[in-house]
Amino acid sequence: METRLKHQVMSPSNVEGNKKKLISLGLGDPTVYSCFRTDLAAKEAVSNALLSGKFNGYYPPGGLPETRKAIAEYLSADLPYELSPDDVFVASGCTQAIDMVISVLARPGANVLLPRPGFPSYGIFSSFRNIEARYYDLLPDNGWEVNLETVKTLADQNTIAVVVINPGNPCGNAYTRQHLEEIAETVGRLGIPIIADEVYGHLAFGANPFVPMGVFGSKVQVFTLGSLSKRWLVPGWCLGWLVMNDPSGEFRNPKLIERVNKYCTISGGPASFIQAAVPQIMRGTNTDFFANTINIVRRTENLCYEKLEELPSFSYSCKAEGSMVLMAKLNLSVLEDIGDDIEFCLKLAKEESLIILPGIAVGLKNWIRVTFAADPESIEEALGRLTDFSQRHIKQATTQSSKIMYPTELQRVKEENDRLLGR
Amino acid sequence: METRLKHQVMSPSNVEGNKKKLISLGLGDPTVYSCFRTDLAAKEAVSNALLSGKFNGYYPPGGLPETRKAIAEYLSADLPYELSPDDVFVASGCTQAIDMVISVLARPGANVLLPRPGFPSYGIFSSFRNIEARYYDLLPDNGWEVNLETVKTLADQNTIAVVVINPGNPCGNAYTRQHLEEIAETVGRLGIPIIADEVYGHLAFGANPFVPMGVFGSKVQVFTLGSLSKRWLVPGWCLGWLVMNDPSGEFRNPKLIERVNKYCTISGGPASFIQAAVPQIMRGTNTDFFANTINIVRRTENLCYEKLEELPSFSYSCKAEGSMVLMAKLNLSVLEDIGDDIEFCLKLAKEESLIILPGIAVGLKNWIRVTFAADPESIEEALGRLTDFSQRHIKQATTQSSKIMYPTELQRVKEENDRLLGR
Repeated sequence: METRLKHQVMSPSNVEGNKKKLISLGLGDPTVYSCFRTDLAAKEAVSNALLSGKFNGYYPPGGLPETRKAIAEYLSADLPYELSPDDVFVASGCTQAIDMVISVLARPGANVLLPRPGFPSYGIFSSFRNIEARYYDLLPDNGWEVNLETVKTLADQNTIAVVVINPGNPCGNAYTRQHLEEIAETVGRLGIPIIADEVYGHLAFGANPFVPMGVFGSKVQVFTLGSLSKRWLVPGWCLGWLVMNDPSGEFRNPKLIERVNKYCTISGGPASFIQAAVPQIMRGTNTDFFANTINIVRRTENLCYEKLEELPSFSYSCKAEGSMVLMAKLNLSVLEDIGDDIEFCLKLAKEESLIILPGIAVGLKNWIRVTFAADPESIEEALGRLTDFSQRHIKQATTQSSKIMYPTELQRVKEENDRLLGR
Repeated sequence: METRLKHQVMSPSNVEGNKKKLISLGLGDPTVYSCFRTDLAAKEAVSNALLSGKFNGYYPPGGLPETRKAIAEYLSADLPYELSPDDVFVASGCTQAIDMVISVLARPGANVLLPRPGFPSYGIFSSFRNIEARYYDLLPDNGWEVNLETVKTLADQNTIAVVVINPGNPCGNAYTRQHLEEIAETVGRLGIPIIADEVYGHLAFGANPFVPMGVFGSKVQVFTLGSLSKRWLVPGWCLGWLVMNDPSGEFRNPKLIERVNKYCTISGGPASFIQAAVPQIMRGTNTDFFANTINIVRRTENLCYEKLEELPSFSYSCKAEGSMVLMAKLNLSVLEDIGDDIEFCLKLAKEESLIILPGIAVGLKNWIRVTFAADPESIEEALGRLTDFSQRHIKQATTQSSKIMYPTELQRVKEENDRLLGR
């Protein structure tokens, strides 16, 4: 359903009603904007590996040894233990890494616990592999932390994994170390592995630094997923990984490893010359490159958050501390001709050539998801259009200044947001 | 089991007993040899797409539109109808294209008909996706044609596809147009689709030109699999495709197409900048490049075939007309300390640092599979070692000149081989 909705909202036919240039804050592909170009050195590393002619051939299942070693080193820098290259399995992007872990864990009658709101592809993965998706809640009034009570309620003996996305898509969460430890302990006690989707790893720009779930690898079996896509701004290179974090060897399962190797044999994977460039890319990328990205997204996030908080058409928005997306709740009571999030997004696309994702696509009706992975100028233009749109559709009794008061139960959200903003 | 065997035979620990440089005629990666370098223009096309910075982002499920269009055009040149770009789904190599078609056709209780001997990965794919593999026979004494009687016997209402590999791995077959039509008609009458594995498409160098199964797309539903890997000598680029041949629209199945699109959404795929280079690669590669490859493999195949036919340790070998591999049958009765194909290959690896694949790995016990995707010098060196090895292990009563006479039932093989050689 999510796919259909996305298509419906994003179809060019919906934006024919006006002459404005299309701006998409929907899917979130930073590479469209010149401020988000990948490091020249990374491109050159790949080009050199390609032109050398040494990496046109087959590679062993799991990836080139030097690539697995470089990824193990890269991730170990943030862990209290050393990963082995054998713990790393190279994948065709984080997308394939998700399918890899879901496929190898799959069994008849299995279910998987997914966050709501969450990255919609997980639902598609699960249904395609005949696994029941069960949704635990994220708490918008508490930095989108995991509602561990719903996890405990939903889990049973057929639960093959709990998916935790951090930094989070679509919520922009960057969990505290303490919360990650709580998740690890709770899920560990249930005897279920965690699939730690860290495709946005290191893209944290708020109070909480990025902490990988693998830090708690002795408390719970952790499958870490990641890729070059977000941090190096190259989603199209399709270079991702699945990592088995198991510092104590407690979760070692030869059959599972054999199954991963089988998957790698039958799955295809990233081009060998891109793999060959990974060591140079991971060891050689200048920290300025990463800092530049963080500075831009901190700025674009702030522009979005401030505007969404100001506009009466949103009852509240949640400040993002990581990833490149945030969520805001529609204030439908002040909108006169908009019934739900889908209608909001369709009319916005048609009238303003501005695409954002209806919350229902990520599991939360009457919210919207906005990506701020765009340059500041485009974000400002987009927010201007959103303002015009909101003003046009506001009920006449409502004025710009009469922003709906936060109800008591949402006061905490505001306080949390204020804390994050350092107010 | 095939994987274990291959590992056993190919492990470096087996070749420690001598100082010779390792030669592998096992897996068959032509890119190891300088005579099999890909076209410089192809590498430059990929490098230019990469360095342009325009192709670092996401692409639609199924691939970049221009890539799908180029592949449709490329394949349509050999068909009596035009494929549409919508018929083409880009995959991470032919490997992922196999998983794609198996995954989308899979259903509980399903079985798939595979050739024996055959490409061993199909068995792994099937078991991984919980599909029963049933093996129909290829006829060594008839150019490895499909034994259509075994196909008819094995097929039932749960058969989701018949896999036909042409040009063939491991048999080196290049089927006649007539035989392909017979297959299409027989399988079509059974109401079962054909998975036409044409990863070696156009690599035919004998009497029969390469004819794609899609030519008979109105007689049977054909899923064509292919890739740049073999013809452009770049298996590591992982650029393959699945194509739905359906000229009459008779086999159109919207649910199946939706399922393929879902698979593409969750599967990862080839890097977008490699995709972007495909139109230039397909339209711009000089025919001299292809002719050069064909000339080399025709020569290396001939060297292999002649020697295998001459050596008394083989009761017969089958001349290849396509792909880069051929099969030969061990003559165990003249070998004094070798019990089967595995022992033959293990001892050969240990004593001569020469790796070839035991037939059991491809489904035919006491045969061997040899790839001739190596430069002529390496092939000659390898064949010299094979000769030495054979002489050392021959029973004392047997002399080089006393090549075992062909039994009557094998006479046809010899005649067929002679025909192919134009004798």
